[in-house]
Amino acid sequence: MQPPDPSGVLEVRDIGSMHVGGRSASLDGLPPQEIRFSPGGPLVRIDPNGDFEIEQMYVQYVRLSRPRARHPLLLMHGGGLCGAMYETKPDGRPGWQRWFLQAGHDVFVADAVERGRASWARSPQFFQGEPVFRTKAEAWELFRIGAQGSWAGAVRSSAAHPDTLFPVAAFDQFMKQSIPRWASTEAAVQAAYDTLARLHGPFVVVTHSQGGNFAFAMALAHPEKIRAIVAVEPSGFPAPESNDLARLAGIPHLMVWGDHLQASAVWRQLRPQVERYRAALVAAGADVEDLDLPSLGIAGNSHLPMMDSNSDDVAARIQAWMERKGLMA
Amino acid sequence: MQPPDPSGVLEVRDIGSMHVGGRSASLDGLPPQEIRFSPGGPLVRIDPNGDFEIEQMYVQYVRLSRPRARHPLLLMHGGGLCGAMYETKPDGRPGWQRWFLQAGHDVFVADAVERGRASWARSPQFFQGEPVFRTKAEAWELFRIGAQGSWAGAVRSSAAHPDTLFPVAAFDQFMKQSIPRWASTEAAVQAAYDTLARLHGPFVVVTHSQGGNFAFAMALAHPEKIRAIVAVEPSGFPAPESNDLARLAGIPHLMVWGDHLQASAVWRQLRPQVERYRAALVAAGADVEDLDLPSLGIAGNSHLPMMDSNSDDVAARIQAWMERKGLMA
Repeated sequence: MQPPDPSGVLEVRDIGSMHVGGRSASLDGLPPQEIRFSPGGPLVRIDPNGDFEIEQMYVQYVRLSRPRARHPLLLMHGGGLCGAMYETKPDGRPGWQRWFLQAGHDVFVADAVERGRASWARSPQFFQGEPVFRTKAEAWELFRIGAQGSWAGAVRSSAAHPDTLFPVAAFDQFMKQSIPRWASTEAAVQAAYDTLARLHGPFVVVTHSQGGNFAFAMALAHPEKIRAIVAVEPSGFPAPESNDLARLAGIPHLMVWGDHLQASAVWRQLRPQVERYRAALVAAGADVEDLDLPSLGIAGNSHLPMMDSNSDDVAARIQAWMERKGLMA
Repeated sequence: MQPPDPSGVLEVRDIGSMHVGGRSASLDGLPPQEIRFSPGGPLVRIDPNGDFEIEQMYVQYVRLSRPRARHPLLLMHGGGLCGAMYETKPDGRPGWQRWFLQAGHDVFVADAVERGRASWARSPQFFQGEPVFRTKAEAWELFRIGAQGSWAGAVRSSAAHPDTLFPVAAFDQFMKQSIPRWASTEAAVQAAYDTLARLHGPFVVVTHSQGGNFAFAMALAHPEKIRAIVAVEPSGFPAPESNDLARLAGIPHLMVWGDHLQASAVWRQLRPQVERYRAALVAAGADVEDLDLPSLGIAGNSHLPMMDSNSDDVAARIQAWMERKGLMA
């Protein structure tokens, strides 16, 4: 397949967004908040009680005049990030949103419940527990830009994997995309994704990391609404023993893996678990392929191939799989 | 001017986003967080200390192949909201982002520091004080959908202004756009906007409510980067006595006002203050016009004319002003 021309003009039929799912909820009995609205100004009493909307998600879409793809593409982010991860890359080059538009897909980009434009709800009243803010050390090591223990307080003093394809000089710029998360919101996130699929599917899904579990579960809830799943380094999955994976038999899956998994304790543990889910999917009759980049001789991809220097090449390989699976007109 | 055809095709040269401004910051000395990552699962100890990026803002842009406008349009949101307020309206109809694209503007949509895809920083360590969550009662009354005291716990039991142009049936859907705010982040918000103007201007700005003050101050910081300001019901402004408003003399201003200001104690107080800023601007030599909708015989606009049923008409009046001011090629 010819790679799409990133300088080409997009003929756009529609661009817009929506908030999906969620519910009304109320608070009462909380004491007044005392807020200082300007430095040195008076303390103002605010009544925090009242009615709210909570647990909605956000989706932005760009629809083409003449899409080649049979179904819109839904881009689902991973943990601690939002849909912006698929837009322009931290080094300023075009990301996958742009690439897949140019390849002829209508593209929907999601912000899950609690992230980005989906907004978040008062905590701990609605979102239980405390928010978790990812440190640069965790991102550097979990996203496998450098080996465990290699973050040393700043990019210039931290050793990246010598062959990394992540744009290391743009690491701080990438960290500006980080968004806090709660560990308690999984059911709400899933409910909103399920509503999105039910009301606005069918979709072909590209999902990343934490988003893998949400995509697999969304497909179990509404298999007729999910026409394919590209899971980029999924970090979780529905338990095969308590779900009927045969419902996914008609949905082609592509699992995408980068490099240096052995350099991370988390990934050394996670990858074999995902392989067990993969095996259960195959046993249930699903068509599952792998895009294991190191086994193709492509070294140095991080956990974020959509931001790595070869992101266009990885996208083209995903696109080629979609063409083979009959997902393009 | 012919209103642009909302069903027309957009020829898009580029679509993307960026995070702008902000800084590196670190935390140490905090005790471990204990987080339960799944219901019934173990408490996991998380070290919250480390390095972060904070106080950046987010901007998404759509650039046309052949823009008619001389400068990109920057859409700045108000308090408790993010850039999504300019996208598809809560009732599902196209919003101002789409309208101004169709009218020939490159459109940038901002999420200020702490909102939406800009993300937010750990509080109270970085963002001082507590976040404030806007209740439905406050939005209903402050945004002048109904009179003060008319919110009665649900849309169906609350009396809207009989002539309101706000899509009342979509009020709960609108509330899903609400995003918490801090009262302590104003300097960081301003710094990021100033950086945006300096690095990526010049812009023509459309700003709303709380965003008015940020736009006026951004123009004072970088007057050569701001070519016009459309302030939709601005709620604040830089103090005329401590700023050199003559720096704004070359920047045409349009002030847009809806209906029912007298039905709100906050707006009864705010409007005359803004009129004083307006007078100081004029005295400093600036070209200031008003689009006071009620005085034109247009009744029923809320604080959110970009979501009211006549939003296309209001946009067309703003567009006509831009044409008169020589902002279109």
